[in-house]
Amino acid sequence: MTPRTPAQNVELALLLEVAGTPKPGNVDRARDYPDLRFEHFLAGAVGAAPALRRAPGAPLGEVFEDAVAGMSEQEGGNTQFGALLLSVPLLYAALAGDCSPEGASAVVESTTVDDAVSFYRAFDHVDVAVRDPPESMDALDVRRGSDAEPELRARELTLEDVMARSADRDGIAAEWVGGFERTFRTAEWLLEGEGPVGERTSRVFLRLLAEEPDTFVVTRNSREVAVEVQKRAQDVLAGEEDPDELAEEFVERDVNPGTTADITAGALFVALEGGLTV
Amino acid sequence: MTPRTPAQNVELALLLEVAGTPKPGNVDRARDYPDLRFEHFLAGAVGAAPALRRAPGAPLGEVFEDAVAGMSEQEGGNTQFGALLLSVPLLYAALAGDCSPEGASAVVESTTVDDAVSFYRAFDHVDVAVRDPPESMDALDVRRGSDAEPELRARELTLEDVMARSADRDGIAAEWVGGFERTFRTAEWLLEGEGPVGERTSRVFLRLLAEEPDTFVVTRNSREVAVEVQKRAQDVLAGEEDPDELAEEFVERDVNPGTTADITAGALFVALEGGLTV
Repeated sequence: MTPRTPAQNVELALLLEVAGTPKPGNVDRARDYPDLRFEHFLAGAVGAAPALRRAPGAPLGEVFEDAVAGMSEQEGGNTQFGALLLSVPLLYAALAGDCSPEGASAVVESTTVDDAVSFYRAFDHVDVAVRDPPESMDALDVRRGSDAEPELRARELTLEDVMARSADRDGIAAEWVGGFERTFRTAEWLLEGEGPVGERTSRVFLRLLAEEPDTFVVTRNSREVAVEVQKRAQDVLAGEEDPDELAEEFVERDVNPGTTADITAGALFVALEGGLTV
Repeated sequence: MTPRTPAQNVELALLLEVAGTPKPGNVDRARDYPDLRFEHFLAGAVGAAPALRRAPGAPLGEVFEDAVAGMSEQEGGNTQFGALLLSVPLLYAALAGDCSPEGASAVVESTTVDDAVSFYRAFDHVDVAVRDPPESMDALDVRRGSDAEPELRARELTLEDVMARSADRDGIAAEWVGGFERTFRTAEWLLEGEGPVGERTSRVFLRLLAEEPDTFVVTRNSREVAVEVQKRAQDVLAGEEDPDELAEEFVERDVNPGTTADITAGALFVALEGGLTV
């Protein structure tokens, strides 16, 4: 049994994720970006915690929005928006006693239009890099934030519906509507791993990165860069490239595989719930 | 105004303390001991947090004991016992609206025999390196833990009384009964400093270390080593020694200036309450 509550484990997972090193392109224990530093992630995790403790009594969307608001109370900007978006349904599943793909999918299926409205409101609290939506989705561009509420209500879209519409271009949304397949698989890797959690975290991050193009890199850089990132991670796993040198290069080039980091954080939560000891 | 509650600021201060680097001889963002690693400090801070939220309603000693119990729920052993001991009265002072030397001293003066009993009980939860007490104090050796309760009650010793008896050989106890002079001064250094909090933390740690022998080093190593540590920190401040090389050497030699780290954590809390932004 974990000595911590599920809400504490979400917070600890956020901290363990950023502490894992090397995680090429991400802020990690050894690397900062000039305006996005390790200390911002520490404050982000501490700031998100009070909202997380309100689950499962409060609605999921509200807990997510308030966690993002708390996370944003530091000067680095967006530190853990995606990690929280991925972790909150897992938190509800754990609190319902079923932190499994089925349990998490049941939480997703139970989301409401109110949850969708709260999700959009969360974008009012912090700048998140997102792609332009297809023209037909313009009224539901997340950058509209709370202004999207009438459209969401008119179309009666739940948060699950919103995620389903983004699943083809956003790795977190894909997890939401795909049974959190990569997240749970990564948690298994963490539990099977050996050595300090910080080293396991780095290894699973690299394995995830080698699997498919990171959607946050596609958004902020380009698909071409995201494919290169995937290939370079494969080279690291094959022993053909040094992960620390790659980390220096990616930070220099501002190539930040944030979606992969978010899935790593979610997997750390699942692993902590499943008996990963620290 | 800080966007966080005082209890959140204690937790964040614990995290910022361990993240500051270099802090020669301590676990920091760049260094681990084989069995005492960065991740243990992250879990220690998260584990301590629920008890801290029970202040000021619950008695100070109980909050401290429970925070230590929560902190201990990780495999590294003692991570933040001293930092919590220093921070808890400061937390109560902040919650009373007076996070100042006078406010903290008022909290110390209000401690009870029950608080002293809880303090001793905290030693049941974790192994803390302490020196043999004078023979006359044998019945009050903190290593007796909860077994010391009858003696504490018979002598009607408050937690302030207990601290006063250790102030000449323990740097945390000296802060308790001396108006937290070094802690508040270090908070000023943090607030006056420039640059990322992690760098400020390293600088104030080195300034504290250069001021006087670290009592944790006296306990675990010897007074001679503690005096050498102080001198080496002076050399770093004079630009005659590289702090990162010194950090490597001290970790290699298992010279861990824990009291200085504890005061740094307390000072980070005071600075966060006083407007230090992250």
